Amino acid sequence: MSDAATSQPLPLDLTGHVADLTAALMDIESVSGREAAIADAVEAALRALPHLSVLRDGDAIVARTNLGRAERVVLAGHLDTVPLPTSPGSRGTVPSSWDGQTLYGRGATDMKGGVAVQLALAAELSAPQRDVTYVFYDHEEVEASLSGLGRLVEHHRGLLTDASFAILLEPTDGAVEGGCNGTMRFRVTTTGKAAHSARAWMGENAIHAAAPILARLAEHTPQTLSVEGLDYRESLNAVRIHGGIAGNVIPDRCEVEVNFRFAPSRSVEQAEAYVRHLLQGFDVERTDAAAGARPGLDAPAAASFVAAVGAEAKPKYGWTDVARFSELGIPAVNFGPGDPLLAHSDNEHVSRQAVADCLDALRRWLA
Amino acid sequence: MSDAATSQPLPLDLTGHVADLTAALMDIESVSGREAAIADAVEAALRALPHLSVLRDGDAIVARTNLGRAERVVLAGHLDTVPLPTSPGSRGTVPSSWDGQTLYGRGATDMKGGVAVQLALAAELSAPQRDVTYVFYDHEEVEASLSGLGRLVEHHRGLLTDASFAILLEPTDGAVEGGCNGTMRFRVTTTGKAAHSARAWMGENAIHAAAPILARLAEHTPQTLSVEGLDYRESLNAVRIHGGIAGNVIPDRCEVEVNFRFAPSRSVEQAEAYVRHLLQGFDVERTDAAAGARPGLDAPAAASFVAAVGAEAKPKYGWTDVARFSELGIPAVNFGPGDPLLAHSDNEHVSRQAVADCLDALRRWLA
Repeated sequence: MSDAATSQPLPLDLTGHVADLTAALMDIESVSGREAAIADAVEAALRALPHLSVLRDGDAIVARTNLGRAERVVLAGHLDTVPLPTSPGSRGTVPSSWDGQTLYGRGATDMKGGVAVQLALAAELSAPQRDVTYVFYDHEEVEASLSGLGRLVEHHRGLLTDASFAILLEPTDGAVEGGCNGTMRFRVTTTGKAAHSARAWMGENAIHAAAPILARLAEHTPQTLSVEGLDYRESLNAVRIHGGIAGNVIPDRCEVEVNFRFAPSRSVEQAEAYVRHLLQGFDVERTDAAAGARPGLDAPAAASFVAAVGAEAKPKYGWTDVARFSELGIPAVNFGPGDPLLAHSDNEHVSRQAVADCLDALRRWLA
Repeated sequence: MSDAATSQPLPLDLTGHVADLTAALMDIESVSGREAAIADAVEAALRALPHLSVLRDGDAIVARTNLGRAERVVLAGHLDTVPLPTSPGSRGTVPSSWDGQTLYGRGATDMKGGVAVQLALAAELSAPQRDVTYVFYDHEEVEASLSGLGRLVEHHRGLLTDASFAILLEPTDGAVEGGCNGTMRFRVTTTGKAAHSARAWMGENAIHAAAPILARLAEHTPQTLSVEGLDYRESLNAVRIHGGIAGNVIPDRCEVEVNFRFAPSRSVEQAEAYVRHLLQGFDVERTDAAAGARPGLDAPAAASFVAAVGAEAKPKYGWTDVARFSELGIPAVNFGPGDPLLAHSDNEHVSRQAVADCLDALRRWLA
């Protein structure tokens, strides 16, 4: 792995096959927090294009055409990846590798294929029929407060809000995915009274007291809510549990971390009330929340995009940054190469054809 | 806290009030695994007594009178404590503190008061009417395989087996407690399938699968079994639980640690079968087991001791090392200062008088 602080940016070739550009981007390791090297390479490639004005903020980059078109759209993607796989023999790692026409490695689907499509369009389309704002950013795969896109909204809001539509190139397997589920986390705590486990009757067992929390979650049937014609499947899960301090002490505290993924028709407040109702009688603290985004596919810009690329519209289950554009009042969809079910897996991969197809679809709409 | 590897042992004053000696011992933090500093201090104090021969093995110490008396007895106690309390404002911590005539701090009852009584007797009785083997040892509050007493039995069996009676100075509030419950631990594991929590239906939640384990334990009513006229109350508890690796991953593994304290009329095999029956259908692994000990108060040495100290005989609920002496064929009882119900609590304390009374009773019998 190159040392981001001292190495020169690798020169990226934006004019070859977009899948080869994907591989070149994957070979620059960029786990969240270490995006400097890839941001250097992307910035250098964009600054070489005279039809773009380029701004860098930390490890985020905004590049804009300025053609005075009637409409402006955003194409956005994050530069970071989740950590490299730790299982020996995993192919979803750095550097990338080809197996026939399939490209393996960290970021293959989430989302260096999408970033490669952005860069190829930026290089090729010196005069698109819509003005384009290309956005590349850091820290998407970690807590929301670190997000490079959030920082751009704060520092350079005007560079984003003059667009009427945004496409996030997160993997959708070529479908157009509208909106996204929201997500929130809770800490559900039971307390008891510590005692020696040989005289358990002197204490109160906080782990036993957590039995109904787990039972209610296990028995709960998640709902599927239809929003503007798309079906959003929810989920509600204990994701972590921890209790007890020693093998001979009756535990006086047990914590269950609960994650609720909720349809965009629920507000954060409504989603919280739903979980609090289910876990009534327990000490429930909300620790984190991000609203979902309605699909917005009835907005004119979104409708024209769906028609132009000829793709099927689907709901997005995972939370993505379309929700940030939604908050800015900009309709946004996900549309990118690769199978979203492979994201974060030890076996991440994408086909040469999928990346090329995504590029072709966007070129048809923009050229 | 001093660094056990480099600090000098604190000099202990064995000739002052035994409750002040208790406080000095409590001020040397000795959570299981970190007994080196207290063992150094105890060893140094014993080596200064010319009427004792002293042996050290790891952080265990054996000191013996060699007067050629007709009878030899063991006085034994462990040097370690459970971890310090974590709740702010807990008084059962290190260092100790006095509130009037009451001494608060970790180990006040379990069992630095007992250790102080051993040391005071060792210093005072240069010519007891029975030969005495004083045993101090490490790792009592953790899994049985680490026990310092077990290690002494293995390495220096002959230094223990020439006694005809043993007294373990575990807290009994001045009563003589015969026998003890057995104890065993189990790891009960549920497994599932990891998935992104936004697409929970692709996975299987191992924490949810643990709900019936906790429910069965919470609903279970422990039994009370009568053995040789004493009533042994059992208990069965989840003492630790752990599951999940991240806030956005469906957990694929959850482990519940279960502790069963069982009457001495059950064998280890019978006790294990009882728990396996209750948790039928789950992956149950026994990780630890120690048989209980029948009271044995009809043995002549035990009867003479009970008569001499004039105390009432009761059952012992907690597993104690009397069971190890029982296995060596040596009748053994618990007799020590402090309320056993306070052991391991955040509020551990002992009265000045209780420690002095225990010392007096043993002095009457030995001097």
